[in-house]
Amino acid sequence: MRLGRRGFLRRSALIAGTALANLGVARTAAGAPLEVPPTAKEPGRGIAETSYGSPSKYESHVVRHRSDVLVNRQNLSDWSMTPIQHQHGIVTPNGVIFERHHAGVPDIDPKTHRLVIHGMVKQPLIFTIDDILRYPSVSRFHFLECSGNTLTDHSKAASKTVQQSHGLLSGAQWTGVPAARLLNEAGLDPAGKWVLFEGADGSNHTRSIPLDKVMDDVLLVYAANGEMLRPENGYPLRAFIPGWEGNVSVKWLRRIKVSDQPWDFRSETARYTDPMPDGKWRKFSFVMEAKSVITRPSGGMRLPGPGLYEILGFAWSGRGKIRAVDVSVDAGRNWREAELTEPVLDKSLAQFRLPWTWDGTPAKIQSRAVDSTGYVQPTIQDVGRARALTGFVQHHNAIFPWAVSANGEVTNAIV
Amino acid sequence: MRLGRRGFLRRSALIAGTALANLGVARTAAGAPLEVPPTAKEPGRGIAETSYGSPSKYESHVVRHRSDVLVNRQNLSDWSMTPIQHQHGIVTPNGVIFERHHAGVPDIDPKTHRLVIHGMVKQPLIFTIDDILRYPSVSRFHFLECSGNTLTDHSKAASKTVQQSHGLLSGAQWTGVPAARLLNEAGLDPAGKWVLFEGADGSNHTRSIPLDKVMDDVLLVYAANGEMLRPENGYPLRAFIPGWEGNVSVKWLRRIKVSDQPWDFRSETARYTDPMPDGKWRKFSFVMEAKSVITRPSGGMRLPGPGLYEILGFAWSGRGKIRAVDVSVDAGRNWREAELTEPVLDKSLAQFRLPWTWDGTPAKIQSRAVDSTGYVQPTIQDVGRARALTGFVQHHNAIFPWAVSANGEVTNAIV
Repeated sequence: MRLGRRGFLRRSALIAGTALANLGVARTAAGAPLEVPPTAKEPGRGIAETSYGSPSKYESHVVRHRSDVLVNRQNLSDWSMTPIQHQHGIVTPNGVIFERHHAGVPDIDPKTHRLVIHGMVKQPLIFTIDDILRYPSVSRFHFLECSGNTLTDHSKAASKTVQQSHGLLSGAQWTGVPAARLLNEAGLDPAGKWVLFEGADGSNHTRSIPLDKVMDDVLLVYAANGEMLRPENGYPLRAFIPGWEGNVSVKWLRRIKVSDQPWDFRSETARYTDPMPDGKWRKFSFVMEAKSVITRPSGGMRLPGPGLYEILGFAWSGRGKIRAVDVSVDAGRNWREAELTEPVLDKSLAQFRLPWTWDGTPAKIQSRAVDSTGYVQPTIQDVGRARALTGFVQHHNAIFPWAVSANGEVTNAIV
Repeated sequence: MRLGRRGFLRRSALIAGTALANLGVARTAAGAPLEVPPTAKEPGRGIAETSYGSPSKYESHVVRHRSDVLVNRQNLSDWSMTPIQHQHGIVTPNGVIFERHHAGVPDIDPKTHRLVIHGMVKQPLIFTIDDILRYPSVSRFHFLECSGNTLTDHSKAASKTVQQSHGLLSGAQWTGVPAARLLNEAGLDPAGKWVLFEGADGSNHTRSIPLDKVMDDVLLVYAANGEMLRPENGYPLRAFIPGWEGNVSVKWLRRIKVSDQPWDFRSETARYTDPMPDGKWRKFSFVMEAKSVITRPSGGMRLPGPGLYEILGFAWSGRGKIRAVDVSVDAGRNWREAELTEPVLDKSLAQFRLPWTWDGTPAKIQSRAVDSTGYVQPTIQDVGRARALTGFVQHHNAIFPWAVSANGEVTNAIV
């Protein structure tokens, strides 16, 4: 992990004007003072009585983006992607957490919102948001990934950027109340085996979840990254099901029902099912298996020239912690273990980093995650043997290579 | 830490209509179905081609706020406070991280910004932001606290809310490059002992920092909570000096100079010094000692009635990790250890939680932090013995009590 200083000296301009290589870095002449910028000569913007800040105008390119691969999108069932190529650290800013809605974003007044718990319980209960805010809470860092993340990139390199290929992904510290607490308060019928979560959106998005998972670690969440949920992420209340595909973490949660069997909702038959090689379709494929991707450098970027770069990326697993991430810069022939940034947390984004000296020849870079169960991220060929690679491939967690050309351009190299 | 269910059953309305106590919680009549809200009957807002989201309009009260204690404020040297009473978890959203400026917020174009390292170095260097972004980076969770946090509340209970008393505080995951790396690249003169950091703002805010600290853990930071710094927090580059008073983490960083002695800048003589009991003034009092405060319930809130509440708050220490937080609900006669939310990290906000059943009689609640060095948060009397409690008291880290009256009103009880 130790780096020589030489690579950096080549890049950093010297005031003495003797830069070792011309890599497009500014330099000043020998002895010249640093120019005093205009901002240092006059007062800046003052402080408002109250405020909620925004990014710099120079960061206006860091935004969520709809798919630019799918052109025949439905108008109401839609999504936008997180600009993960610009994300520093394991927190996705709330302003750019990806969106996935089945009928748009409802505008819910928390004063009128209600959550009901009913079905196979001893005592049905109804809660206001103020009620829920009074319960003892927990805060946990977890990733959230749509089962359709990377869905367009299996048989051809459809996405130009990692935002388009892997941007249905986010990391946040979620705060809420364990679902088990409210269910225990309602009193579970011993015959109960499944739980329904229903949203208050126009699609009445509804999913069946095994009760065991709900009682284990599911949260009823009202806050992310320090503040109440944004409307597009479920304000004022959502389910949060750690490590499972995003759509089961039902947003705008208004109803929880307990039953002895699943319901086979539309999102469990027409959607969120996976075609298998034998022509059958798998359903209730909840867990997001271990996955990783290099976010820098990634598709659409251009390396300005040979020299030292930091390879950065994310890894995550719905089954536990990330144990290791290996990186190859030679199309998978050799692998080196990357450094993981602490803290590495359960079912959470982990960030990996590895210095790389690019020699200016074509390269293929990729990462491979290993989780705490020993599961190793598969290749696209592995995934293709286990399932049918056709249409929108959900749960596509394959190793994802980027090609670096001799002129420094980085492109999608999945096939 | 176990709670009986009874307290909650009293609060949660029963669909059967037999709520155990009237605590202002909504209820529905026996057998009545949950009303279907209008949002569940029509499509919501669609997804824009690109977007950067905002909080719900129902959260417009969660904003930074200028001091409402100080009326004769200066116009250019000003601050606004974080609404920590609304913060869930250890991440302060970037939109509400407190501000402290000496001459307003400059609007800096990262393409033209430069950082110079000079003085007692072998080779002066100048960097662009793109240069700095190419270096191997680190991301760490740390608190940031202004030395003047709680400055108005020592001899009278001046602040009505915890935002006003303790809102010069934030927590974030900061990303940047270790300062030591760039200084080593410039090559340190062995006689160097102090480092100057200068900002590109209208005040040219400048501080002297001991070189040992800079080489130990100081970062040159460009991102917070996943995205590039906000303008008011130093975009595009700031110093970040873990555990030390906020003003030394110089924003809009443009210059680092190495010397064999400190400079005694205006912010080291006229400001950021502490009056002592003997009439002298202490300078270079950098470290923020262990401190904690209860954020919920806190000043300005009102408990709707007797019953179960969760006491929530933050603890932090500039010398290491928080080891424990004790909470008293009887004016300091008895203390119980609170639960700390994982992960508990070095020089970072820690969140503590303790369930409390309020019996409806007047109470005084307060928290006391212990850090990994064994340091115990002092009382205001302790602080008064060590220093002169006059004017704006910097580094006021005393235990901070809130009074709860019989009608549930929570007020500042520092004296």
